[in-house]
Amino acid sequence: MPKQESKSTRSDPSRAVAFSDAVIAIVITLLVLDLRPPETEPGELLDGLLSEWPTYLAYAASYVYLAVIWLNHKAAFTRIREMDRGLQWANLGILATLALVPWPTAAIAETARTGNLEDERVAVALYAIVGALLCLSWLVFFSYLARHPDLTKEEVSDSYFARERPRALIGVALYVAAGIAGFLIHPLVASVIFLLLPAFYGLTSHGFDQQPAILRGGQKRDNTARNSSPKSS
Amino acid sequence: MPKQESKSTRSDPSRAVAFSDAVIAIVITLLVLDLRPPETEPGELLDGLLSEWPTYLAYAASYVYLAVIWLNHKAAFTRIREMDRGLQWANLGILATLALVPWPTAAIAETARTGNLEDERVAVALYAIVGALLCLSWLVFFSYLARHPDLTKEEVSDSYFARERPRALIGVALYVAAGIAGFLIHPLVASVIFLLLPAFYGLTSHGFDQQPAILRGGQKRDNTARNSSPKSS
Amino acid sequence: MPKQESKSTRSDPSRAVAFSDAVIAIVITLLVLDLRPPETEPGELLDGLLSEWPTYLAYAASYVYLAVIWLNHKAAFTRIREMDRGLQWANLGILATLALVPWPTAAIAETARTGNLEDERVAVALYAIVGALLCLSWLVFFSYLARHPDLTKEEVSDSYFARERPRALIGVALYVAAGIAGFLIHPLVASVIFLLLPAFYGLTSHGFDQQPAILRGGQKRDNTARNSSPKSS
Amino acid sequence: MPKQESKSTRSDPSRAVAFSDAVIAIVITLLVLDLRPPETEPGELLDGLLSEWPTYLAYAASYVYLAVIWLNHKAAFTRIREMDRGLQWANLGILATLALVPWPTAAIAETARTGNLEDERVAVALYAIVGALLCLSWLVFFSYLARHPDLTKEEVSDSYFARERPRALIGVALYVAAGIAGFLIHPLVASVIFLLLPAFYGLTSHGFDQQPAILRGGQKRDNTARNSSPKSS
Repeated sequence: MPKQESKSTRSDPSRAVAFSDAVIAIVITLLVLDLRPPETEPGELLDGLLSEWPTYLAYAASYVYLAVIWLNHKAAFTRIREMDRGLQWANLGILATLALVPWPTAAIAETARTGNLEDERVAVALYAIVGALLCLSWLVFFSYLARHPDLTKEEVSDSYFARERPRALIGVALYVAAGIAGFLIHPLVASVIFLLLPAFYGLTSHGFDQQPAILRGGQKRDNTARNSSPKSS
Repeated sequence: MPKQESKSTRSDPSRAVAFSDAVIAIVITLLVLDLRPPETEPGELLDGLLSEWPTYLAYAASYVYLAVIWLNHKAAFTRIREMDRGLQWANLGILATLALVPWPTAAIAETARTGNLEDERVAVALYAIVGALLCLSWLVFFSYLARHPDLTKEEVSDSYFARERPRALIGVALYVAAGIAGFLIHPLVASVIFLLLPAFYGLTSHGFDQQPAILRGGQKRDNTARNSSPKSS
Repeated sequence: MPKQESKSTRSDPSRAVAFSDAVIAIVITLLVLDLRPPETEPGELLDGLLSEWPTYLAYAASYVYLAVIWLNHKAAFTRIREMDRGLQWANLGILATLALVPWPTAAIAETARTGNLEDERVAVALYAIVGALLCLSWLVFFSYLARHPDLTKEEVSDSYFARERPRALIGVALYVAAGIAGFLIHPLVASVIFLLLPAFYGLTSHGFDQQPAILRGGQKRDNTARNSSPKSS
Repeated sequence: MPKQESKSTRSDPSRAVAFSDAVIAIVITLLVLDLRPPETEPGELLDGLLSEWPTYLAYAASYVYLAVIWLNHKAAFTRIREMDRGLQWANLGILATLALVPWPTAAIAETARTGNLEDERVAVALYAIVGALLCLSWLVFFSYLARHPDLTKEEVSDSYFARERPRALIGVALYVAAGIAGFLIHPLVASVIFLLLPAFYGLTSHGFDQQPAILRGGQKRDNTARNSSPKSS
């Protein structure tokens, strides 16, 4: 009975995908559009532009991070057949936290410019909190799908999203660790972890099974690929 | 004859849905992107960030509210087959009022920071007016659909949207009541109602029939579910 | 030969429609999001909000205007089968000019607040120029379609878009007249025309043939309706 | 084996196209929305508006440039059947660099207003760098497609995207040349090249083969047209 009720409010994911694309496109674009010519005295534009290098670096890193999130989002939704209300809210949680990313990014860029070590510690801690929240929202999303295999496409193996959870959990742990290390030891320690984590997620965006072919038997991987990687439509 | 004329200007709702998704995505994302690192003296970033807690709370509440509106919008449009000009304008009315939400949200957040009780009363009254207008726009939308059953999908019962009207009407009444109570008694009274109302709409986003299974006979609900809850496509 | 070449670069309008929807959604939403709580002394929020009434009026009028433009855009594209490069540029011209609308709107709102008659004349003249440019871009768009009947759907009568041109031409003439009257006589004269023109376009968004049923023989209208009003898909 | 693995992460380009459309729509619209009434003393609005002419010119040129980029993007994607991870990143590179365009555009407009020749040199050099990066991102995109003919539609000739590379390479070279000339000789030299390059790309948006019919034998062009210009769907 409760099963039946929940089914009646299900829908295919097309509108949620379009909505998510719009949100991610706005966040990633406004990040870049935030770049403005510095307000400098006449003749000092070049100095002004050059002194903003931490901003360029921070925005480039955030752009890559958000691009990785979008690719991961796309990879996950090619495997989803239907959405119920719980999955809608899990997705809205991801969107809410990813839209926060430009906020600590700007804080890191500004404190890098002013060079106050105390503020730099606070800024990397803020970034670590937002990063951990973002990984947490993915953990909720993957866990929900792991517990509701009827929402995924038929060709996706039942354990696919269960096996995705460690990826998100590692992120939560590493962001928390980076925040603590950046706050207690030095902000630079945190910054290095912040740059490495998106790379890790970029390389594993289709799951642990797909990428590290070197680490696993090719035979088994092929089967997994056939079972769990439908084309999006 | 007038019937025929109106039919010739009808269209399927796909473009209105895409347009609405874009508008809601922009509003909900810019709400979050509005978060900026506070401009503080060197070494005072932490204090600056912590003192902005009313902003975080207000934006979180508004995000949830707009997410609920989007889910309700999605639930309504899965039941709509065709749109005529009247329904287009009713939808544009919803979009206009929901785009207003960040405005009183910012007013409440700012007055909570400055702590002037007089301004706080005005801010909650403004929020109440916008909230009431938003519910009013949904009332117009539901009423229009109730009077034009030929615009809904065949499997939707003719009384579905008529039964949605009380939900919107309750919202108008409660926002007006919250505004008056917040202005005359204390802003906190209004704030509690503001937080409860989105929860109410979130729980009933597929209509009164669907949700409160506890309150009604399961047998009858099942029939309703079969009649009135088409899958979106 | 040139015919063949031009055909090879044609495409169906779906991506241009999605792009236009996104642009119009951004313009119409940012117009509303531009509303901000006024920066007032403690205790003066109410006065600050009330003194901004010209802004509310100007934004409401612009919202309705942009909504009318979107409905007209939708009505035109339900009749278009294919786009070539010329039509793409005609559409991009419409998007460029409609994105200008918030600019003179803000100028009118600000000059209404400061109350300098000289500036008010300039602001209405600016609005008139943008309005005339917008109608001119529609005139180019309709003329292009009138000269390329092979781009429209089969069921659309060949003269449909030729008959749309006077609507756009009237707009150009009236905006120019309003600008001159507003500049030479009084800004209020222009403002009244600015408010009436969107209403005119809203009522005729499916062409002259469709709307004024009272003015024409019902029999003839019915035939036209059958020929020229395909459903969008 | 590696082939098989890469295939399992492929998807059709529809979601990447929608995402790109949203990003380009945001960039092109916010460029226009950046226009604001100047903050002038009462009675000086006209002077304020007129003195901003470099801004109008710079924004008009950038609008046309971004419109050309969108048309080129559309033309390229009508020929793409599937996307793998490499092509996704090549596309994300184009989006990142095109979102940069408003930044040097604003720098040129502002330095033209202040009239400091030193800053003008820096601004055109910045514009040249962004322009060269943008062409470079297209070069990467075309080269990737030239090396992966299995990603393009069947009716597209294998050499189509290889023949697109010179167009991008010319752009890189000309932007670098314009930057050097603008910095060493005079900013005006660079500005003329900046205005001519988008025109060049606009005229060749469907490849060298399509446009200059005058320069080539009509017979050969026709065959090419049949082979390489599928309709988008």
